This record gives sequence, structure tokens and C-alpha cells, in this order.
Amino acid sequence: MGETPSTKVDLATLTPDLTTFLGKSAYLQLAVFENLSRVVRTAPSTEAKSALSQVAGLALIKHQGLVAEIERHGADAATTMQPFVSEIDRFQRVTEGNDWFESVTSCYLTAGFLDDFLVRLSTGLPGAAGDRIVAILEADSGEAVVVSELLAAIETNPSLGARLAMWGRRLVGDTMLLARWTLRPSDNHDSDEARIEPVFTELIAAHTRRMDALGLTA
Amino acid sequence: MGETPSTKVDLATLTPDLTTFLGKSAYLQLAVFENLSRVVRTAPSTEAKSALSQVAGLALIKHQGLVAEIERHGADAATTMQPFVSEIDRFQRVTEGNDWFESVTSCYLTAGFLDDFLVRLSTGLPGAAGDRIVAILEADSGEAVVVSELLAAIETNPSLGARLAMWGRRLVGDTMLLARWTLRPSDNHDSDEARIEPVFTELIAAHTRRMDALGLTA
Repeated sequence: MGETPSTKVDLATLTPDLTTFLGKSAYLQLAVFENLSRVVRTAPSTEAKSALSQVAGLALIKHQGLVAEIERHGADAATTMQPFVSEIDRFQRVTEGNDWFESVTSCYLTAGFLDDFLVRLSTGLPGAAGDRIVAILEADSGEAVVVSELLAAIETNPSLGARLAMWGRRLVGDTMLLARWTLRPSDNHDSDEARIEPVFTELIAAHTRRMDALGLTA
Repeated sequence: MGETPSTKVDLATLTPDLTTFLGKSAYLQLAVFENLSRVVRTAPSTEAKSALSQVAGLALIKHQGLVAEIERHGADAATTMQPFVSEIDRFQRVTEGNDWFESVTSCYLTAGFLDDFLVRLSTGLPGAAGDRIVAILEADSGEAVVVSELLAAIETNPSLGARLAMWGRRLVGDTMLLARWTLRPSDNHDSDEARIEPVFTELIAAHTRRMDALGLTA
């Protein structure tokens, strides 16, 4: 996932407490699963439907892993996620896209960005729980399957590519806002910004690589 | 699942060829997953959402197991499922329900009935593939979670119970038609009916037990 030791160390001071981290990231993975299951339902072919169902399953595995981690600490999953539902639902609505291709692109780009971000942030979590959570978030999210579905459609329809390129650029802003929302609040904004900036530079580079994989200009 | 040796032996002669069985049952599990993922998206609480996402995951595991079995025989999953898409999509539309509670009830009753039926039918499949497919279909489908969600709602709202009892009765006819559609076509209808009837008697008894578990009269 292209992490460097320096960004790991820096961002760790902005990692929220374990409960908040788990509540936000577990509900976010559930939202990713919901987006993917919607594109499964509306898939234009049986092949796309079956392929994307595998991708939905991978998001569900991440959600379930994080729920298991919440329960391991003696907490209730729904109660732990509840404070973060409305903000993540709002993010889901603004990024869900206007048609099937925009929705699939959103699943790919926003989940990719946020997984990368949460992995970096989870290095600031304590002990063995932190290690387990990194492993859950770093697990395969089926990007190769999504790229293959989108690439085939873009290659046969160049105007779709132009539209998805614009959509991909639009998604970055909302996704970065959600990433910031997961950080621990702090009083020293200047010092926070100095920590966050190099991480976002890396994550935007990863976003550009995801766009490149579709033949799109970020 | 309450099988008896006699029904196993009888129904095996109506088992379709392996490819047909796998195509129909793999796409059916994908349809069950889609129904469940829709009720996840529209769940009335975070608790129900998270709980039902686990159930959706179990249907997806069945779909993935059957897809793996198709690929193990050197076939393509989408191509194998394609001939059965329109019939199963039609079934999905007529059984999806008019609100969240009817949808959840449908997931529980139709998937339960069809899983039971396919398990009985899969005993007629050849060799090790048959054994693997029985194991996939017999696996946990999360009925206890669904019952717990529905029961809580019915207990606080008796008129909902009356409505779901009626809906549950309505589902049996369409579900039996889909079960019949999965059978191998034959020229001897009288002899087929003599085989099918005791199996359906058992499956309807299991349906009645599922209704009982919700406190509903079948």
C-alpha cells in the first residue's frame, strides 16, 4: 500500500481512540458493502453481477472483522457505530453516482482512498488490536476485478471515460473531507496540517494511479 | 434439515444434470444475496443493518462455493448461470415484498424452502461433486438472526404479524413453482408426482415450522 515509516509515525498522533476508530471504520466498510451490493443488483450482465458480488463479499469481510474486534473489547457493534451513521450515510449519498458506472467508479476510488488512509491511521492504535485492524483493512478489496469491469466498458465507449474522469476528480474532495473527519480533534491546527499534508499527497498519488489503471486522467 | 433416506432416494431420479443444477442453484443464491443486501440497505436500525449483513454474507458464501464448483469443472460461471437468469429474476420480483418486513420474511421463507429442496435434489448428483454441493447448501444461512429481527418487530406490532402470516402463505405457491422448475424434465408425470409429493409435504412442514418460529400461523 506504499506506506513509508515517516508518515506512519506522523499520523499516529492524530489517530482517534480505539472505540471511535472501530465505530467509524466498521460502519464505513458496511457502507462500502451497501454500495457494492447495489451495483451487484443493477449490474448490466450476469458476468458483472457475479464478479462484483465477490468484491462486495470482500468489503463485508472487512466489516465483519471490525465488528468482531469491537465485540472482542466487550462492546456492542451497533452502539459503537451509531454516532457515526449520519455522517457516513451523508457521504454515501453524495458519492453514490448517477448511474451504474459512476457507482462502480465510486466504490473503487473512495474505498481505495479511505482504506489507504485508515491503514495509515491504524498504525497509531495500541498493541495487538492495532496489528489486527491493520491486517483487516489491508486485505484484498478486489480492485483488480473492479478495474477489469470498468476498463472493458470504457474501452468500448470513450465518452464514458471522459465522464468517469470528471466524476473521479469530483470524488476526491468529499473523500478527503471524510478522511479528515476520522482524525482525532486537536487544538494545534498548524501542526496537524503539517502532519496531514504529506499523507494526503501520497493518497492523492495513489488515487492518480487508480485513475491511470482505468486509462483516465486524474 | 430433517431429511429421511426414503425421500433422498426418490427425488434423486429427478435431479437435473450437474451443469444445470449448478447454474440454477448458483444464480439462485446470488438472487438470495441480492434480496438480503437490499434489506441491509433499507434496514430500520444500525443493529438490524449489521446483523442482516452477516446473513447476506452467508448467502454470498453459498453462491461463491457453487461458482467455485462450476469453475472446478472447467466452465464459466456467468455462462453456466445465464440460461436461468430470467426465470429466477422473475421469481425474485414476485417474492420481493412490498416493504422491509415482507422482504425479510421472503428472504427467510423462500431461501429456507429452496435450500431444503436443493439439498434433497443434490443427493442425486454424482460422486464427490455431489457431496461438496450438499455441504455448501446445507451450511448455515443465518435463520436465527432473521427470526430474531422479525420476532422483535412482530411482538411490538400484532397487525404486522397478521400481514406477514398472509404474505408467508402467499409465498409458498411461487416457491413451489420455482422448486418444480429446477427438476429434470421427464415423460412420466404420474410417477414424477408420486416422487415429488412426499418431498413437498416435508418441505411444507418445514415451512410451517419457520412460520411457527415467528409466532405466525402457516
